[in-house]
Amino acid sequence: MANPTGHTVKAFDEDLDQLRASIAEMGGLAEAAIAESMRALVQRDGQSALRVIEDDAKLDALEAEVERQAVQVIALRAPMADDLREVVAALKIAGVVERIGDYAKNIAKRVVVIEEAPDLKPLSLLPEMARIVAEMVHNVLDAFAARDADKAAAVCERDKAVDDFYSSIFRALLTFMMENPNHITPATHLLFVAKNLERIGDHATNVAEMVYFAATGNHLAERERGYDTTLEADG
Amino acid sequence: MANPTGHTVKAFDEDLDQLRASIAEMGGLAEAAIAESMRALVQRDGQSALRVIEDDAKLDALEAEVERQAVQVIALRAPMADDLREVVAALKIAGVVERIGDYAKNIAKRVVVIEEAPDLKPLSLLPEMARIVAEMVHNVLDAFAARDADKAAAVCERDKAVDDFYSSIFRALLTFMMENPNHITPATHLLFVAKNLERIGDHATNVAEMVYFAATGNHLAERERGYDTTLEADG
Repeated sequence: MANPTGHTVKAFDEDLDQLRASIAEMGGLAEAAIAESMRALVQRDGQSALRVIEDDAKLDALEAEVERQAVQVIALRAPMADDLREVVAALKIAGVVERIGDYAKNIAKRVVVIEEAPDLKPLSLLPEMARIVAEMVHNVLDAFAARDADKAAAVCERDKAVDDFYSSIFRALLTFMMENPNHITPATHLLFVAKNLERIGDHATNVAEMVYFAATGNHLAERERGYDTTLEADG
Repeated sequence: MANPTGHTVKAFDEDLDQLRASIAEMGGLAEAAIAESMRALVQRDGQSALRVIEDDAKLDALEAEVERQAVQVIALRAPMADDLREVVAALKIAGVVERIGDYAKNIAKRVVVIEEAPDLKPLSLLPEMARIVAEMVHNVLDAFAARDADKAAAVCERDKAVDDFYSSIFRALLTFMMENPNHITPATHLLFVAKNLERIGDHATNVAEMVYFAATGNHLAERERGYDTTLEADG
């Protein structure tokens, strides 16, 4: 019943490679969007920010392309259990990477609305936090391409550092707001920037869990689904 | 080549009905989580909030079940183009509903961390905003079950009201923070609650777009992908 079209394993593997290549391309765009949006934030560069916002359409288009490819692979190759699961995983990972791009776009949008902002010290922590989450995105897609469970597990471990950054930045921003009411509006925007970075880390972690499961058949030790793991430290 | 198992249309339709039933069940849980988390927030009811947090595991389990069912339907029935697209849509919608549940869980987590909060006027706007987004979730899953494009389009139209609520609440909370530094911490939590509700509205809208496309083959008039459409009004 399965594999009724008599496709060669090779044809399916080539299709899967094509899917992986599209996802790797998405990952590269998402990484660049994170780095560029943060550079634009730090340098108050509205033009670069607008470019990040525009470029997000490419990620959306690539996700639609991955979906089209995945549906076609399923329809043409009728893959069996494990192979099918792999195609479904690719579909889900593409969705997550697209959302990571949306978070970077949101950061870029903040750059456009923060017309002027006093020098806030927590701003200096944000690029470092961004560097870590961009690396997580990079490494998790490497892990996906190489089906490397250890590398995926290493990505999950870094999420704790991201959460610690978020908590530090959150506290620092609250302190700045309390010191001076003029800081409240810009600090609120930076709070959402920090939150966006924290979510990117969560999403990279979720992908890492999918990659780990696909490669080993086992779940990484139980942990909360990614959202707002830092919440308890907020207040 | 397609439909090589010679399955009857009836068997596929029954499978699809089963998928729809699971998604409807997820929708009911998500709706209840939104309503309960907001009730807990308004009444400062930590016990109810903890229950919402615990109950989210049911949504996660149901999403995994939908994924299992969808993969099985594809493997057993080898559905052709349109049918396959419908199964993939069900898979994606289940993922979005699971995320909606996560946002409700996040609201419940805020209830637990906001130990005490002064009476903030914007708090009174939040339940109304929550009521609208819960209705959007309800209506969009009705539209999905009935393949009702008009109902789906109506859900999209309500997203504007949600964005307006968010902007009002955002401004009101900033004003409260500026008036009194003691308001900053609780108001920040409420800001994230409002953001979570706004995201729920965005996700309901995204589902509505999928339902509309599945039912008509046409895209609703171009609009931004859901994230942070309210951003420009933030500052």
